[in-house]
Amino acid sequence: MSIITLTTDYGLKDHFVGALKGKILSEYSEAKIIDISHDIDPFNTVEASYIINASYSSFPKGTVHLIGVDMELNKENKHIVMQWNDHYFIAADNGILSMVSQKIVPQKIVAINIHDRLPTDSADLDVFVKVACHLAKGGLMNIIGKEINSIKQVTDLQAIAAADGNSINGHVIYIDHFGNIVTNISKKYFIEIARGRPYEIELKTKNIKTILPNYSDIASSEKYPIKSYEGQKLALFNEAGFLEIAIFRSNPSTVGSASSLLGLNHRSIIKIVFR
Amino acid sequence: MSIITLTTDYGLKDHFVGALKGKILSEYSEAKIIDISHDIDPFNTVEASYIINASYSSFPKGTVHLIGVDMELNKENKHIVMQWNDHYFIAADNGILSMVSQKIVPQKIVAINIHDRLPTDSADLDVFVKVACHLAKGGLMNIIGKEINSIKQVTDLQAIAAADGNSINGHVIYIDHFGNIVTNISKKYFIEIARGRPYEIELKTKNIKTILPNYSDIASSEKYPIKSYEGQKLALFNEAGFLEIAIFRSNPSTVGSASSLLGLNHRSIIKIVFR
Amino acid sequence: MSIITLTTDYGLKDHFVGALKGKILSEYSEAKIIDISHDIDPFNTVEASYIINASYSSFPKGTVHLIGVDMELNKENKHIVMQWNDHYFIAADNGILSMVSQKIVPQKIVAINIHDRLPTDSADLDVFVKVACHLAKGGLMNIIGKEINSIKQVTDLQAIAAADGNSINGHVIYIDHFGNIVTNISKKYFIEIARGRPYEIELKTKNIKTILPNYSDIASSEKYPIKSYEGQKLALFNEAGFLEIAIFRSNPSTVGSASSLLGLNHRSIIKIVFR
Repeated sequence: MSIITLTTDYGLKDHFVGALKGKILSEYSEAKIIDISHDIDPFNTVEASYIINASYSSFPKGTVHLIGVDMELNKENKHIVMQWNDHYFIAADNGILSMVSQKIVPQKIVAINIHDRLPTDSADLDVFVKVACHLAKGGLMNIIGKEINSIKQVTDLQAIAAADGNSINGHVIYIDHFGNIVTNISKKYFIEIARGRPYEIELKTKNIKTILPNYSDIASSEKYPIKSYEGQKLALFNEAGFLEIAIFRSNPSTVGSASSLLGLNHRSIIKIVFR
Repeated sequence: MSIITLTTDYGLKDHFVGALKGKILSEYSEAKIIDISHDIDPFNTVEASYIINASYSSFPKGTVHLIGVDMELNKENKHIVMQWNDHYFIAADNGILSMVSQKIVPQKIVAINIHDRLPTDSADLDVFVKVACHLAKGGLMNIIGKEINSIKQVTDLQAIAAADGNSINGHVIYIDHFGNIVTNISKKYFIEIARGRPYEIELKTKNIKTILPNYSDIASSEKYPIKSYEGQKLALFNEAGFLEIAIFRSNPSTVGSASSLLGLNHRSIIKIVFR
Repeated sequence: MSIITLTTDYGLKDHFVGALKGKILSEYSEAKIIDISHDIDPFNTVEASYIINASYSSFPKGTVHLIGVDMELNKENKHIVMQWNDHYFIAADNGILSMVSQKIVPQKIVAINIHDRLPTDSADLDVFVKVACHLAKGGLMNIIGKEINSIKQVTDLQAIAAADGNSINGHVIYIDHFGNIVTNISKKYFIEIARGRPYEIELKTKNIKTILPNYSDIASSEKYPIKSYEGQKLALFNEAGFLEIAIFRSNPSTVGSASSLLGLNHRSIIKIVFR
């Protein structure tokens, strides 16, 4: 029995997510459906790209990931399925899969072509449901689409080193539930450019000179209780492999968060300077 | 194995939804539980009515829909089960089922009468859990209730044509996650009154003269990219069959929504004029 | 097949909850995962303690409760498993389990010691996932931890009677989705101190002199419709056994709630006086 994950910008107030699950179970009663997020910022393909990239590998191989963000079929966005690392991703070809696939060539990509095999009043979502159930049951990609060689890429997901190699310019791509900010600077890219040199992450307030392995490594000294470090800023590479700037044990609704306290927002520039 | 869906105003912060699922699984470990919404506006039976009507048919026949909105048993509201279109609906008899059932006679309705068969400290929800599991297992309605002939109706869910047949007066019954507004004007009623005449949906700003088949049909010309249509208003009949007024690719937290930009709220009047 | 429940402060926007479920299903594909809440106030162990105490008993015996609040392993907080009333609780030893366990001695407690058996890049959550799946499969506690005799207690969860026994001093520990406030005064403790005497719950506005069995018992007279009681304040012992002060059919976003209308917030004092 395969898992079908759902990532959408539908929100949880409306009936859309429930109805989507009803349609999947009507088509394939054995499906195991898991929500990744339904609170993607509306039509924000960068957020969706980050979320799916950060989470897909926690699922077993063979999992089918349905991505319902900016998915209406139109003259610009085809519907596609990408097989990558033995996972299946169903989405519109709007750049949303470029973060997942940016480093390694996908195993296979097809442009979905079953639209005219469905009843005429079918919505775009019905197409995705049909495809997801087909794949979750172990069906072949060739049956539901025509092989294609490339997908749309979004370029601003990638941080860039200065020409002299002495700095990296990145920006904020995601702000999480705790108000911590996630940048597009990957650990891999940082190590490649840093070549072991000392560095500073430039911030409006005091710069950060150390990227920690874990949040609680901020409590460096045995002399003070953990609680005394609350509210301090820190940087680490998160589980998704991206540089994150956080406030230790921040609560956005009370003391504030990295986003509010450091004045950083979606697309704010984050610069790392090497010496 | 039958599906049990949940529609409540409990919210997701508290433990109530989790505890409800625990009770269902304690009673019937094989139950497949699907959330429709837990963010119904508190005690808002019109919203609940719209949501359950818009979603139930996405589920397979035999599904049991538990509706936990304004459900406390009291001198005015009996607990009922309605069988309709081979789905089961468990709710208080407070008008919440009148939208689902307004056009076609239900197959069967019973007033639940198992309250005194449960332990004395049982809550209203325990009654619904017991009934839901009984039905999901394939149990008969007669065993848990006494047949009745009618349920309470709420009248303001129905749009009304003017006496001369030259206009329809409806109002806003739901505002969705994207801030799009849903009216009580059904496609069926519109076609019946319109008899093919041209029409205008009257709005504070420029009227809308065309109801589109799909959101992206707004991009009528091949000359411009889809993006150039963002922020334009449009009307369409949504999947639930009701007239919806939307802003193309609106984001309530940034550019605004149909609700905020057009100044429309719950119960705002929407008028369609024919010529 | 055992149930694994999840209670966290991760929120639902990020991918963390979805990824957590993916990890559980990767380890144990048969797991039945139920969300209790992911909207615990960040790092608020009192809220988490209340929520898990109020909900665990709705689940069947043998259920494994994973509590992901303030769970990073550090010099102060060990990772523990507590077996209590044939349920399993996995948490950091930060006082979060003291409400569940305050009255009865747990069956068994172990300090988890499998951290060095996992891959070196494992996160704290991976430890909890491993332990939860082990227990859900029926594994023994001794295999994943070393028995200990006591856990950390938080003291401020307990209301206290005055020395003369003529009053109880409690405070607000939780505010629910409807804005109703929950205190730390348990029904059991109230009965013990009250010894049948008349009482008043002191409030800024008119005191409450009766604790009702149910919300709708406020509609004491047959003369008036239920609707006429909306907006009145009332007190009752909720299903979790704690004194709750509510506004009948309150809607926090429109008419206001017990919290906003009575000026009560987290940690506000609630006093009951006996005569």
